[in-house]
Amino acid sequence: MKFIIIGGDAAGMSAASRAKRHMPEIKVMVLEQSDDVSYSACGMPYNIAEADRDIDDLVVRKAHVFREKQGIDLKTGHCAESIDPTQKTVSGITSAGETFQFPYDNLLIATGGSPILPDIPGMDLPGVMALKSLNDGRKIKSFLADHPVKKVAIIGMGYIGLEMAEALRSRSMDVDMVKPGPVFLPWMKQELSDIVRKELEEHQIGLFPGHRIDKIVTSGNQLKLICSGQTLAADMVLVAIGIKPNSELATGSGLEIGVKNAIAVDKRMQTSDDHIFSAGDCANAYHVVNGEKVWIPLALRANRAGWAVADNVCGKSTELPGIVGTAVFKVFDLEVARTGLTEAEAVESGFDPVGVVIQSRSRAHAHPGSSTIYLHMIADRTTGRLLGTQMVGKEGVAHRINAIAVALHNHMTVEAFSQTDLAYAPPFSPTWDPLLTTANQLIKKLNLK
Amino acid sequence: MKFIIIGGDAAGMSAASRAKRHMPEIKVMVLEQSDDVSYSACGMPYNIAEADRDIDDLVVRKAHVFREKQGIDLKTGHCAESIDPTQKTVSGITSAGETFQFPYDNLLIATGGSPILPDIPGMDLPGVMALKSLNDGRKIKSFLADHPVKKVAIIGMGYIGLEMAEALRSRSMDVDMVKPGPVFLPWMKQELSDIVRKELEEHQIGLFPGHRIDKIVTSGNQLKLICSGQTLAADMVLVAIGIKPNSELATGSGLEIGVKNAIAVDKRMQTSDDHIFSAGDCANAYHVVNGEKVWIPLALRANRAGWAVADNVCGKSTELPGIVGTAVFKVFDLEVARTGLTEAEAVESGFDPVGVVIQSRSRAHAHPGSSTIYLHMIADRTTGRLLGTQMVGKEGVAHRINAIAVALHNHMTVEAFSQTDLAYAPPFSPTWDPLLTTANQLIKKLNLK
Repeated sequence: MKFIIIGGDAAGMSAASRAKRHMPEIKVMVLEQSDDVSYSACGMPYNIAEADRDIDDLVVRKAHVFREKQGIDLKTGHCAESIDPTQKTVSGITSAGETFQFPYDNLLIATGGSPILPDIPGMDLPGVMALKSLNDGRKIKSFLADHPVKKVAIIGMGYIGLEMAEALRSRSMDVDMVKPGPVFLPWMKQELSDIVRKELEEHQIGLFPGHRIDKIVTSGNQLKLICSGQTLAADMVLVAIGIKPNSELATGSGLEIGVKNAIAVDKRMQTSDDHIFSAGDCANAYHVVNGEKVWIPLALRANRAGWAVADNVCGKSTELPGIVGTAVFKVFDLEVARTGLTEAEAVESGFDPVGVVIQSRSRAHAHPGSSTIYLHMIADRTTGRLLGTQMVGKEGVAHRINAIAVALHNHMTVEAFSQTDLAYAPPFSPTWDPLLTTANQLIKKLNLK
Repeated sequence: MKFIIIGGDAAGMSAASRAKRHMPEIKVMVLEQSDDVSYSACGMPYNIAEADRDIDDLVVRKAHVFREKQGIDLKTGHCAESIDPTQKTVSGITSAGETFQFPYDNLLIATGGSPILPDIPGMDLPGVMALKSLNDGRKIKSFLADHPVKKVAIIGMGYIGLEMAEALRSRSMDVDMVKPGPVFLPWMKQELSDIVRKELEEHQIGLFPGHRIDKIVTSGNQLKLICSGQTLAADMVLVAIGIKPNSELATGSGLEIGVKNAIAVDKRMQTSDDHIFSAGDCANAYHVVNGEKVWIPLALRANRAGWAVADNVCGKSTELPGIVGTAVFKVFDLEVARTGLTEAEAVESGFDPVGVVIQSRSRAHAHPGSSTIYLHMIADRTTGRLLGTQMVGKEGVAHRINAIAVALHNHMTVEAFSQTDLAYAPPFSPTWDPLLTTANQLIKKLNLK
């Protein structure tokens, strides 16, 4: 059997490795347009934070290991351009300009996502950068090495933008962030996002939400980011608005496209063609809380989906139950986490969400070093089902969110969750864990209906 | 209605406060033999670690607040000595030597636990101490203030003993620990307990398991702890073998006594008498994993059980689903956590446990500051049900265990748990959380059957 994988990152290489483990006789070919495979994209901001660290530290497994140790026919510099689902072939061009066409029995499209770039003049100026691929990271790092960058303007205020703001600030650069939308972290309950905003401001990050981005121009040795009602001078402009799924190959070959323009797949990661699968940032997932298809591109899901495709290609039928929307990031001294639905998403999904916002402590009463944890928890008024939780604090947030994630996978009510036996010791928690205190408050509010 | 509570600590005061909130007209009387109510017993080792901190910092709510603000008839210095379930009265004696007898409609026995003291000569010598009540903490602190203590011998190697070893070491005292049992942390998988043992040894704690404790004698200005094959000199001897339930009052009044000599209660916390409840360290709980009655005295459960009693006394029928055996402690730079059953407990409960021990990392590939996390996870061979997990590491252990605790409450299989959407960001976890990597390994082992 010939199994071709387009894209050599998390989903693609996970699928390739697992297929060879399941079925050593399978012919696995990976077509990767760049020269990089299997690297930790999420680690890039932390690597960029340290001028002396080699960005290639982020490579988890080198190409020759896949080729020689695992027997995967990994072709880097191979850009797939079209798929013929009837003939079952993939065609494209190499970085040397040679065309290729390969036949497949099963195909995985794992083309990932690309940064959304604003359609404004000046995007091609030197010093205007985006961060997605390892090569983007290399370019940023070498630009910073070669230029006396004192000031950076970041377009966008999402996870990557915030992580980059911290990374650049740690290298003593001034950082401004700007975006068209008026609300900072719009998915977050405002009482919590205010804490994050304050943390950024305490680290001298300039925050300018609500400004349309018009153009980037040069001005002497600097760049100028011209926005509605605001002009930001900078030595470098970083675009971090978000990513979009790379679904063009799928569209071109007539495959069904779904939510947020991602490639539509079922729980087996199968597209509308029986022999074509898709996984990773280009494909949808299912949300366990509302049962709907969603597009939330994150690394764990990509790995898991790659494995599921390998299982299905190798005859071990695997369905992925789905995600619950868990995410965490660090920004300066804060841990920020969420799982489940936001209030707005809950309403859209037909729930009647009731929420509470509370403050609790990261350690026990009178224990030194304790700090405030801010929590927002929502549940459905009718059924009492837990729908989602958000948290912000200096410690004890990143892993604590997982208890709620597991509760969401099990469709627990707040009442049932409030009875769970969570760990307590004075250095780590009050006797009633902040999650339990929040659940107790939410139960009270639900009972007032 | 007259509701009498014997014992003014976690379970008792939780019940008292909640009953008054539910039903302001209820007459709540609390009989507490000491002068202390509502303090953080678990915080004592951390307080003792700092010579300058007032141990009364650990008092969460002062007696007069309960009396004046909450309208609770709190009688400190009142030692209950007997219960007459037929007449529905409690009798006893005050610290001033006056006898009392009070009638009740409903009674809560929340008498807690007491340290197990070895029956050996020398237990009454000055400098021989146990730690359970706030007053015990006061005595230890004042002994340390008044005596030049350079060396402490601790009898027992449980949570409290280990926390006290760290506390005393941080005050530059030499610490030896001794116990009769031959195995250090016998409930823990040895690959993990070896890590804890190493951490103690690196902090110069002398560990002497497998020595029978024979007697304590004075020798000059010092104490000598004479054990089989080992004599330990010390300026202070701390007994931390464990605690036993204070169930004598219940025994004396003919109530049913159950597992580990704890007062037998059902899920409503009701004893064998319809009008007598019991909660806290003196009563049993149910274990969610095996459905059996267990006695695991911990603070969260005590609070929760106190609330449940208040609910039931006030006519809001509440059943507690039970515990899953979650516990966490810190010892020097390590976080140690467990939840669910040990392999031995799983066998006793009729399961056929299969386990894996793995090492994972606390942060992502190539992320600075990462350390090793050691995990042990077991599941039932026949059903694939997750049964328990233990973890040791320098970071990311204490809260991570809660994800497994919630999974156990939901009777998840390892397979289902392995698909949960746990948080990932490079500072907090590898892409595959250590719990998921462990689950994946365990699935492989289960499939080999």
